Amino acid sequence: MKKELSILVSNDDGIDSPGIYSLVHKLREIGNVTVVAPDRQQSAVGHSLTIASPLRITPFERDGEMFGYSINGTPSDCVKIAISSILDIKPDIVVAGINHGQNTAINILYSGTVSAATEGMLSGIPSMAISLASHSLDADMSVAAEYAKRIALEIPKMEMPKDTFLNVNVPNCVMEKIKGVKVVHHSNTVWKDKYEKRNDPFGREYFWFSGEYNVKNENEESDDVALGNDYVTINPIQYNITNHTFMKKIRNFEV
Amino acid sequence: MKKELSILVSNDDGIDSPGIYSLVHKLREIGNVTVVAPDRQQSAVGHSLTIASPLRITPFERDGEMFGYSINGTPSDCVKIAISSILDIKPDIVVAGINHGQNTAINILYSGTVSAATEGMLSGIPSMAISLASHSLDADMSVAAEYAKRIALEIPKMEMPKDTFLNVNVPNCVMEKIKGVKVVHHSNTVWKDKYEKRNDPFGREYFWFSGEYNVKNENEESDDVALGNDYVTINPIQYNITNHTFMKKIRNFEV
Repeated sequence: MKKELSILVSNDDGIDSPGIYSLVHKLREIGNVTVVAPDRQQSAVGHSLTIASPLRITPFERDGEMFGYSINGTPSDCVKIAISSILDIKPDIVVAGINHGQNTAINILYSGTVSAATEGMLSGIPSMAISLASHSLDADMSVAAEYAKRIALEIPKMEMPKDTFLNVNVPNCVMEKIKGVKVVHHSNTVWKDKYEKRNDPFGREYFWFSGEYNVKNENEESDDVALGNDYVTINPIQYNITNHTFMKKIRNFEV
Repeated sequence: MKKELSILVSNDDGIDSPGIYSLVHKLREIGNVTVVAPDRQQSAVGHSLTIASPLRITPFERDGEMFGYSINGTPSDCVKIAISSILDIKPDIVVAGINHGQNTAINILYSGTVSAATEGMLSGIPSMAISLASHSLDADMSVAAEYAKRIALEIPKMEMPKDTFLNVNVPNCVMEKIKGVKVVHHSNTVWKDKYEKRNDPFGREYFWFSGEYNVKNENEESDDVALGNDYVTINPIQYNITNHTFMKKIRNFEV
């Protein structure tokens, strides 16, 4: 009998979010799923680690049955502690999501979902982050869940390099509207930072991030444009972040 | 008269840490320094953003005089809010540090100090993160501060690309022992994850990260090795994180 795919699932919206629920139920059709996810919303935590306080592992039920383990930490914590302290053997793949909101371009740096997939990759496991282009908690997750399953099935055949993982984004539309799958690079879009200045009930000033994300004129091969054109996008990410060209230029730098 | 260099300083150890104090005092010799830093220790927060709660800007004194502004947020928050809501004009450079502990290899991903420099770069400002290879709060910061000053003076002449910033690490030794400055790439060292399982006073289990960081056999051009050999290391970082080779390989991916 074919060995079942062993899948570790995490996210950054919290273990009680609709996105991870849809993902887990779909992935159970193809494998043995272990869920280890934050006990609360952890969006925009980036690649945070909890090193200054203790972590707790708490069994978590949904629909009256065991769903997974919640952790009082970040997505990176979850994947690390799952692999080192919960699972007996390394999973075959790590899937993070389904994130409520797209993770394209510079958002990759801020995303806890992407960080969870990064941790999977750092542990030597083929990994994928998957996000839906809608922040609505009522968004239909079924299309993204279906693509998570299809791509998860392909990952073992992909010969993905050890230093690379997949960042997948899915348009917020019905299956019939999806134009296909496009392998892309991340776009160069950045946030235009803005903070709204307000006053609290005691008259004291506070500030709230309210930046704008405007996709620039990018080519069709970028995640933002392809996603906007109703393609499921797959961006293979590799943290080879040294600028080697500039490194050569300043090689003889003296101070 | 030559225009004074305008410098924004942040960190992740908190506005009251020894590292930022030494840095600020040294940089005041060459420019007009504005400090905007977290109100508390924020190590390993990675590229976190505070989007779900309000931020406060609070003037902060040291030695009985105005030192800077503390923010109840992350290093990324600090740089963003400084540029968009505190400073009237963009600073000439952003300097983050001096971090207590080296930021080499994979630690770059977890580092709040590096994230602060990343934010400076994303705002179009030449930026640098600087870290000392010692976690001790009593460590001598003077060598690192001196190199921060020297490199800061060179940055405007460097023609650094818009998408690149400098990640500087300084050995924990006296000036006479420093062998020189080396331009490096980041090493491939990763953490060997481990969580210590303990019991709290009520008998309940908790876990604490206690991973090991063992530098592998790397070449002399890597940050970990050069730093270990008493060189000040400069790693130019660029977040061009798409794996273009693998992207081409799976271009015709179908699911």
